[in-house]
Amino acid sequence: MADKVSGFRFAATRAGIKADGPDVALAVAEQPASAAAVFTKNQVRAAPVRVAERRVASGKIQAVLVNSGCANACTGPRGERATLDCTRAVATGLSISEELVFPASTGVIGELLPADRITRQVVPLVESLSEQSYKAFAEAIMTTDRFPKMHWSSFATGGVDYSLLGVAKGAGMLHPDLGPPQATMLAFLFTDAKLSPEQLRTMLIPAVDASFNAFSVDGDTSTNDCVLLLASGRKPVQPDMRAFSQQLQLSCQRLARSMVADGEGTNHVAEIRVTGLGTEADARTVARVVATSLLVKTALYGKDPNWGRILAAAGRSGISFDPERARLWFEDVQVVEGGVGLGAAVEARAKEIMARAEYRITLELGDGPAYASYLGCDLGHEYVNINAGYRS
Amino acid sequence: MADKVSGFRFAATRAGIKADGPDVALAVAEQPASAAAVFTKNQVRAAPVRVAERRVASGKIQAVLVNSGCANACTGPRGERATLDCTRAVATGLSISEELVFPASTGVIGELLPADRITRQVVPLVESLSEQSYKAFAEAIMTTDRFPKMHWSSFATGGVDYSLLGVAKGAGMLHPDLGPPQATMLAFLFTDAKLSPEQLRTMLIPAVDASFNAFSVDGDTSTNDCVLLLASGRKPVQPDMRAFSQQLQLSCQRLARSMVADGEGTNHVAEIRVTGLGTEADARTVARVVATSLLVKTALYGKDPNWGRILAAAGRSGISFDPERARLWFEDVQVVEGGVGLGAAVEARAKEIMARAEYRITLELGDGPAYASYLGCDLGHEYVNINAGYRS
Repeated sequence: MADKVSGFRFAATRAGIKADGPDVALAVAEQPASAAAVFTKNQVRAAPVRVAERRVASGKIQAVLVNSGCANACTGPRGERATLDCTRAVATGLSISEELVFPASTGVIGELLPADRITRQVVPLVESLSEQSYKAFAEAIMTTDRFPKMHWSSFATGGVDYSLLGVAKGAGMLHPDLGPPQATMLAFLFTDAKLSPEQLRTMLIPAVDASFNAFSVDGDTSTNDCVLLLASGRKPVQPDMRAFSQQLQLSCQRLARSMVADGEGTNHVAEIRVTGLGTEADARTVARVVATSLLVKTALYGKDPNWGRILAAAGRSGISFDPERARLWFEDVQVVEGGVGLGAAVEARAKEIMARAEYRITLELGDGPAYASYLGCDLGHEYVNINAGYRS
Repeated sequence: MADKVSGFRFAATRAGIKADGPDVALAVAEQPASAAAVFTKNQVRAAPVRVAERRVASGKIQAVLVNSGCANACTGPRGERATLDCTRAVATGLSISEELVFPASTGVIGELLPADRITRQVVPLVESLSEQSYKAFAEAIMTTDRFPKMHWSSFATGGVDYSLLGVAKGAGMLHPDLGPPQATMLAFLFTDAKLSPEQLRTMLIPAVDASFNAFSVDGDTSTNDCVLLLASGRKPVQPDMRAFSQQLQLSCQRLARSMVADGEGTNHVAEIRVTGLGTEADARTVARVVATSLLVKTALYGKDPNWGRILAAAGRSGISFDPERARLWFEDVQVVEGGVGLGAAVEARAKEIMARAEYRITLELGDGPAYASYLGCDLGHEYVNINAGYRS
């Protein structure tokens, strides 16, 4: 099998937390793995986030237990006891220390995790662990996702092949706000490289910043999200750090793009690229404000190249620029020059581009050296249907 | 007539800018009136905003010319010439200085104002001016509004009766961001009191901050909005400043509430009240983040008392609080205590409250002395229909 990662096994099953489908997933390393993680910056932090953060501080994790259907957030001390009951059962089933079990939950906020339903599944979960079952793991952590999100890659440095597997879930309450010492996302990355927790951490933070930190589905940052990176060390030669960093960033970006493509009710992924500003931070801010503007998102849904809304959103971003120098493109079709529209003919061509599943909008706001991209998506009736009905 | 304001006359007509209905409005003072205004903080500023801001700096305005259907924003030097052509025609028609004419436009961004259509209507507009026609004025400035927004009030101080008339329009791209020296909103206030431009300005800024600055329909700040306050001085005795200030604030708040109630696609106005924090600014920030959260807005649309989304939005506001002390009410029905939900029975009662056209959600986050309110609304299919189809 080309797409396994030496040293990790996976399993999933149904515990009856969600209305249907598998809803509990387990990943286990043969030995305690080097670990680094970032967690949601939201001050309202679910019980599993609090437990996981304490445990990953040791730099070693051997098992990851994830459930969908219940976030176990805003559940007080009873919620934390429920999480601990589950991780203790997994530790017993695997004959490892409880402190090596990393919990994560996703789903409805405010409902207590039904620990007994999960603990009853520990024995069958442990018995079914296999290197190939990561797809089952990816499916069991889904909530409103339409498809599982995985990215497997291998790369060679110093004559050694390394593997990196990323598994993630979306699909709403998605506006990651990640950074040291905290971050936001439900993604799990597994590699067979030999790397220390400090090395993992050093590489994870910029990779997350360039991926999960640079997209939004609906502007809401969850109480539960986390990104966990585990290294089994089965390939005992250390990889080239630059090569590994690049691969990690690529993998995170691919997972992030999958999450936007599968954002609740989304039909189009729009990369908002802002250029010509003085600093990357300024460019990122403008791109984020444009990508999260409701009027822009509904225009994307309507396939309307409504550049006026894009300029107006940039104008309220708080970042200084000269509107009379603004230029704007949909892919390679320019629709604005000097802050003024170029007419109906180019807009008709832009409208055709907006029918695509993915496209880029470039907004040039001066001749500064810095640029940044931010992934956004359209917002339409399906988003309303999902979120006015689904208690998430 | 009890509801006129001495010294001001109004007129409206159709110039053929919008698809149908009246779209040009004129208000004229008998003499140059004391004037103060605040304009959008958006850096992308429409031509009429730039012209109006220069002219109101003198403290005197005698005529207000407003059109709907075209914002004349992002139209470059040609756009400014079009605005100047229109105000020059009004000045000629009224035999006053061009510098006394205050322009305002609302509608589609990126389309040039058809000045000739407006200048052709100046003579009939001037001929039809009357004290009673302010309702026609209010109707002609509407875009996606479902009803005109007016608030007339009178108050007596020192034995003199004063009148204050407010006229405003919504209904989308509504997230005012107002403050000295700039601000955001299309509202016009007329009074017969004798007040200097400096007095008007001193009272306008806090009134705007407590009203138009404290609500959001869709989070997007327009390129065109302004608030203009004119005093004809027909009641030559100066009013008590405190009484006038209170009346002005009340009038602005009533207009702001009308705008939220008529927000694009809105069915429910929710006042988000945050209490128990250390400063009013912090409370306002939390209330604003909750009120503008897409997940909260879709929950309001679905009449789902989804308090988890409200706590999660507060948690990402950047304002520090202890989630385990959070309490939450829908009107007088408490659904959260100590950060944990109080169960299905109270949620069923909250759901009934959410069927109302207006209700209050109170979020207590500690025992600090400060509190603030922010008006929000639900977001549903009608908003998507309006903004995925209408080029605004």
